Amino acid sequence: MGFLSSRVFKWICWLSVVAAFFLIGFLIGWFARPTQSARSDGPSHAVLQEFLDEMQAENIRQHLRKFTRLPHLAGTEQNLRLAERIRDEWLRYGLDSAEIVHYDVLLSYPNETKPNYISVVDDAGNEVFNSSLSEPVPEGYEDVPNIVPPYSAFSAKGQPEGDMVYVNYGRTEDFFLLQRDMGVNCSGKIVIARYGKIFRGNKVKNAILAGAKGIILFSDPADYCAPGVRPYPDGWNLPGGGAQRGNVLNLNGAGDPLTPGYPAKEYTYRYRTDEGAGLPSIPVHPIGYNDAAVLLRCVCVLHLRYRYLLIDFTLFSLTLIFRMNIHTINRVTRIYNVIGKIRGAVEPGAVSTKYIILGGHRDAWVFGGIDPSTGAAVVHETVRSAGTLVGRGWRPRRTIIFASWDAEEFGLLGSTEWAEEHAKILQERAVAYINADSAIEGMYTLRVDCVPSLHTLVYDVTKKVLAPDEDGVSLYDSWHKKDNWTDDRDAPRISKLGSGSDFEAYFIRLGIASGRARYTKNTKTEKYSSYPVYHSVYETFELVERFYDPSFRKLLAVAQVRGALVLRLADSPLLPLDCTEYADALAKYARAIAEAARKHPDELLEYRVSFDALFSAVDNFTAAATSFHERLRTLDLTNAMEVRMANDQLMYLERAFVDPLGLPGRPFYR
Amino acid sequence: MGFLSSRVFKWICWLSVVAAFFLIGFLIGWFARPTQSARSDGPSHAVLQEFLDEMQAENIRQHLRKFTRLPHLAGTEQNLRLAERIRDEWLRYGLDSAEIVHYDVLLSYPNETKPNYISVVDDAGNEVFNSSLSEPVPEGYEDVPNIVPPYSAFSAKGQPEGDMVYVNYGRTEDFFLLQRDMGVNCSGKIVIARYGKIFRGNKVKNAILAGAKGIILFSDPADYCAPGVRPYPDGWNLPGGGAQRGNVLNLNGAGDPLTPGYPAKEYTYRYRTDEGAGLPSIPVHPIGYNDAAVLLRCVCVLHLRYRYLLIDFTLFSLTLIFRMNIHTINRVTRIYNVIGKIRGAVEPGAVSTKYIILGGHRDAWVFGGIDPSTGAAVVHETVRSAGTLVGRGWRPRRTIIFASWDAEEFGLLGSTEWAEEHAKILQERAVAYINADSAIEGMYTLRVDCVPSLHTLVYDVTKKVLAPDEDGVSLYDSWHKKDNWTDDRDAPRISKLGSGSDFEAYFIRLGIASGRARYTKNTKTEKYSSYPVYHSVYETFELVERFYDPSFRKLLAVAQVRGALVLRLADSPLLPLDCTEYADALAKYARAIAEAARKHPDELLEYRVSFDALFSAVDNFTAAATSFHERLRTLDLTNAMEVRMANDQLMYLERAFVDPLGLPGRPFYR
Repeated sequence: MGFLSSRVFKWICWLSVVAAFFLIGFLIGWFARPTQSARSDGPSHAVLQEFLDEMQAENIRQHLRKFTRLPHLAGTEQNLRLAERIRDEWLRYGLDSAEIVHYDVLLSYPNETKPNYISVVDDAGNEVFNSSLSEPVPEGYEDVPNIVPPYSAFSAKGQPEGDMVYVNYGRTEDFFLLQRDMGVNCSGKIVIARYGKIFRGNKVKNAILAGAKGIILFSDPADYCAPGVRPYPDGWNLPGGGAQRGNVLNLNGAGDPLTPGYPAKEYTYRYRTDEGAGLPSIPVHPIGYNDAAVLLRCVCVLHLRYRYLLIDFTLFSLTLIFRMNIHTINRVTRIYNVIGKIRGAVEPGAVSTKYIILGGHRDAWVFGGIDPSTGAAVVHETVRSAGTLVGRGWRPRRTIIFASWDAEEFGLLGSTEWAEEHAKILQERAVAYINADSAIEGMYTLRVDCVPSLHTLVYDVTKKVLAPDEDGVSLYDSWHKKDNWTDDRDAPRISKLGSGSDFEAYFIRLGIASGRARYTKNTKTEKYSSYPVYHSVYETFELVERFYDPSFRKLLAVAQVRGALVLRLADSPLLPLDCTEYADALAKYARAIAEAARKHPDELLEYRVSFDALFSAVDNFTAAATSFHERLRTLDLTNAMEVRMANDQLMYLERAFVDPLGLPGRPFYR
Repeated sequence: MGFLSSRVFKWICWLSVVAAFFLIGFLIGWFARPTQSARSDGPSHAVLQEFLDEMQAENIRQHLRKFTRLPHLAGTEQNLRLAERIRDEWLRYGLDSAEIVHYDVLLSYPNETKPNYISVVDDAGNEVFNSSLSEPVPEGYEDVPNIVPPYSAFSAKGQPEGDMVYVNYGRTEDFFLLQRDMGVNCSGKIVIARYGKIFRGNKVKNAILAGAKGIILFSDPADYCAPGVRPYPDGWNLPGGGAQRGNVLNLNGAGDPLTPGYPAKEYTYRYRTDEGAGLPSIPVHPIGYNDAAVLLRCVCVLHLRYRYLLIDFTLFSLTLIFRMNIHTINRVTRIYNVIGKIRGAVEPGAVSTKYIILGGHRDAWVFGGIDPSTGAAVVHETVRSAGTLVGRGWRPRRTIIFASWDAEEFGLLGSTEWAEEHAKILQERAVAYINADSAIEGMYTLRVDCVPSLHTLVYDVTKKVLAPDEDGVSLYDSWHKKDNWTDDRDAPRISKLGSGSDFEAYFIRLGIASGRARYTKNTKTEKYSSYPVYHSVYETFELVERFYDPSFRKLLAVAQVRGALVLRLADSPLLPLDCTEYADALAKYARAIAEAARKHPDELLEYRVSFDALFSAVDNFTAAATSFHERLRTLDLTNAMEVRMANDQLMYLERAFVDPLGLPGRPFYR
C-alpha cells in the first residue's frame, strides 16, 4: 500500500461510491420496472362493493315502470322505440358504445281482420259457442292500443273441424296411454292439451305425430293457480279469462326458421316459408280455463276417466263438433338487438380482448311485467352502475358486452342471430354468458342454474349480497337455509342449465360457460307451473309492485348477483372458473346415468352396455382437473403470459364439451 | 455564491456525479431488463441453415431402402413392426417422445381362399377368359410374401353377371352422355371405366346412381403410360399386367366408416358393417390394360363410337356375358400411428403450447416405393435433423408433432381418427399441418398446394433451398423458371389445397392452415394421370433409384422445403402467416365465381343472384387484412403478450373459414 498516494486512494474510494450508487440505481431500475404492462390486481373488494352499492332498488322500480307502460311485441314500432331509448340511456350511463343491430327474421301475428277462435258447432251448423277473442284488459290499461290477443305464434292457418280428444299434458306418455292402453285414436281429431310439464312446441309436435289435425292449449287452474291466492288484480293468480301466448315452434336452437345456422341478414339465403325449420303443420290455439271448461264439458265421457282436471263438468246431450278458426300470418320482419360495450383494459386498442356477455330480451308478449322486463330493468341498473364506475376512471380487464335481445318470444331469435353472425369470434373469445330473462318468478329464495365451473363463483358472490327479506343476513345464508342441496352437499342448491331462454345459442351451440339467476318460489310446496299469469295481459308493473316485490329488494338482489358474476368474470386476473367442480358434477352425472340404467338389466346384457369407459373418462378428467387446479394455486400472477395461458385453458374447458356433430337430427344442440 | 465554500461546492459536484451515475445505472437497469422471459429471437439464419445442412440425400436413400423391402399394408403385422422401428429410431434421433397410438377401424382385404377376378362366359357357361389374379412380381421380389393382389378395398361381395357398358372415366358427364344423348341404359349392367380424372370412389358412386350392378376399373395406357418410356423395369411406365389398387369409399372425410366423427377406440359406439359410412353397394374390381383389352374387345360395337381408347380391338362374334367374382372381406382391424414430439421452448412444462404438425402415412399397398415411402423417408430425415439440433441444445418455440399415419390407403383413417380423438385441442392449439405423402411424382420441378396464408413462407423457404438439378441455383429460381404463375403474378405457381391425403381432417374439418410440397412432372407436356405405376407392385425402391431420383437430391430438396416450413412455423416469434395473401386469393376466387356465373345470364336473373354481398365481404376482409398487417409491422416483438395475441389472431384466421354445418350432406367438409 505504501506507494499508493492518498489522492489515488481517495479516487478509488470515490469510484467505489460512484460504482455502488450505479449498482444501486441499476438494481432499483431493474426491479422497479414492471415486467408486464397489464394490471395484475383483480377487482378489489372496494370496486366490487362500489359496483354493488351503486345499484338501487328504487332505480329498478323506475326502469320497470318505464319498460312496462306499453306493449313491446317483437317486430313492432313500439319495440324499436324502446330499443332506441335503451341505446341512448346506455350511452348516457357511460358505456363506450351502444348500437342497434337488426335482422330480418320470420315472425308470426294474428290476422288483424280475421280473429282466431274455437267454436262448438251444433247439428244445424250453428256456432253455439265461440271462445273469447281477447283477455279482459286490467284496470288502467283500457286505452292501451296494440295488445295482441292470445295466439300461438307460427300456428299453421286452417279451419279444421271434428271430434275433440283431451290429451292431458300432451306428453309422449300421455299419447301412449291414450293410444295403447285406452285405444283412443287421435288421428284426424282436434286434441286439447293443458299447458305445463313440457314446452308447448313439444305438445304440438306430439299431436302432429299422433295424427291430430289441430291442437288447443289451455291453462288448467291446477297448474296456473296457487291455492289460497285470488286472481289478478286482487292477487297474483291467473283469471279465468287469461290465456298463455307463446310460440309453438320446434326449433331446437336453429334461430330464425328461414336461415338456420346463419345470421338473417340482407345477404343471407332464405328457405321458402313452407321449408322453414320447426314450423308446425297444424293449427294451434291457446285459451283460458273459462273457455276450456265449456269445451271440455262437450268432450265425450271417455275422458272422464282422467282425474287430473279440477273443473267439474257434465256432458252435453247434443251431437256437437268442434272447429278451430286460425288465420295467423307468418312474415319476415325486422328485429333489433341493442349491443352495448365497455372495452377491456388489458388490450383496449386491440380486438383480441376476451368477452363477458350479460344478455336478456326486451320483447314482451304484452306489457312484460315479469317476462322480460324484470330482467331488462335489472340489466339496465347493472349498466348504470358499471357505467358510473367507468365514469370514475375504472375499466374492467376484459370487455363486457350488454345485450338487449329482440324476438326471444318467437324462438330466441335475436340472441341466436347475433350468435350466428359472430360465432367465430365468440368461439375464440367469449369467456362467459350470463342470462337476464325474468328476474323473479316467486317470492321465496334465489334460484341459480349454471355450468359447474361457475358454482364456486356463485357461492362467492352471493356471500357479498344481502338477503332481500332478512336484515343483516347474506343472500347466501338465506338461500342456503331455504334450499339446501341435501342429498349431495351442504350448500345452496344449484341446478343444471336447461334450455328455453337466450343462453341457448351461447351455451348449447357455442359451448360458452353460462348461467342464470332469479328469485323463485318454494318448489317443495308450490306445485303450479311457472308463475300463474305467465304470458298473459296480466303481467303488469302492478303485479310486481303489489305482489311479487313491493320493496324491489328481491330484484335488487338478483341484479347484484348477475352483476357481480359479470364483474368478477370480467375483472379477475385469473378467471374465476372452477374445473374441480366440473369434475365433481361429471362424476355425479355418470353415477346417475349408471343408476338409471341399472333398472334395465336385461337390455344392459343384450346390448353389452358398459359404463367402464365413462367412469374411466371421469376419473381421468378429475385427475387432470385436480392437477390443473394445483398448478393454478402456484401460478405467478405477475406473469401475464402464464396467466393468459391458464385463462385460455379455463375458457376453453367448456368448449371441450361441444360435439361438433350435435345431437342426432339436432345439429344446433351440440 | 459568495458564502458557498469550495468544499460544499465540491460536495455538490460529487453528489451530482454520483446522482448521474445512479441515474445512468438506473436507466441501464431499466432498459437492459428483458420484459419477457420468453425468447423473442426467431429461428436465426444459422439455426435454419444448420437444420437444412444436416439433412443428407444419402440418408434419405437409406431410409427409403429400409422402408421398401417388404409390403406394409395397413392392419398387417409387418406394418406394426415398421411402426415400432420408426418409433425407436425417432427416439434415438432425439425426439422428446415417440409413441404408438392404435385405433380399431374397418379395413378390407381379399379373401385368401377365394380370389377376385372377372370372367367372360360363353353360351355354354364356360369361363372362356379370366382376368389375372395377380401382377407379375418384379425381379428381386419373387420370394417376398404377403403381396396383396390388385383389389378394390371395401368392394361389396358378389358375383354379378350380364352385359357390360364402357363408361369412359365414369364421370357424371360420361353417364349423361351415355344415358341422355346415346340412349344407353346402364341399369342392371356391369360397367367398365378407365381410371383417371376423378377419384375412383366417385366412379363407383356414379355407377351405383346409374343403376349398375358392378364396376370394373382399368388403367388405360393413354392415362398411365408416358410416351417414349418403357414399361417397368426398363422404364417407369406401367406394364400391361400392372393394376391400380385403391379404396372405393365415398367417405367425404368421415374417417373410419363405422365411427364417423368419433375416434375408433375401445369405448366408441360402432355402426353395423352394413350401416357404415361411404361403403359401396356393388362389387368393384381393378384390372390392368392387358386384361382390359380382352374385355373391351368383347364389349358391343356401340362403344366404338368412343375414340378415347388407344387399344385397337375387334369385336367377337360370340354371344358372351361377363361375370365379376368378388369375395373381398371387410373387418375391424387394429391400426397404429406413430406420434413423435419435440416440446416447445416457450411453455415447455405447460400443455398450452401451440402445435406444428408434420404428418404423412406409412402404410402402403405393396412396397410403397413412391407412395408413401418417399414421404416417410423425408419425414424420417427431417426428424433426424431436428433431433440432432435438439441434441445440441436447440428447442423450437412451439411444439412440433411428427406423425406416421396408418391406413391412409383405406380412407385417411389413421390421420382422421387421431384428429377426431384430439379435435378440441387441435382446434385451440394447432397452428399448421404440413402433409408428407409421396415426395415425388415426376422429375421436373416443385409442386406446392397450400392455403394462401402460407404463400409468402413457401417463397421464403424455397429461396433457402438449392435446386436439385441446377448447380448454384435456388429451388425458388428453378421452380419460378419452370412453372410461372403466368396469368396472375410473376412468381412460381402455387395451387389450392384439394383433398385425398391425410391433411383432410386437419384442413377441411378442423380449419388448420395446411400445405403440401412434392416434386412433380411438367403438367404442360405430361398428360398422363398421377405417375404410371401408382399403387401397383412396381412401386419399388429401384423405381426411384433408377428413374425418378438417382442422386436423391430431389427428395432432399422436398425434405428441406417441408422441414423448413415446419421449422419456421415452429420457431418464428411472429407466425409467418400472411393474411394479405389470403385477401388476394379470396378476391381472385370471387372474381372467378362471378365470371363463371356470367355464362348463365338467364338463371342469374331468374333467381335474382347478386354477387354484391360477396364482393363487399372480400373488400371488408381485404381492408381488415391490410390494417392487421400494418399493425404487425409496428408490433413490439419484445412484448410477449402482444406477440401472443397477434399469433392467436393469425392462427385462428384459417378457422374462421370453417362452417360448423359443413357442406350439405357432407358434415365433415366444413
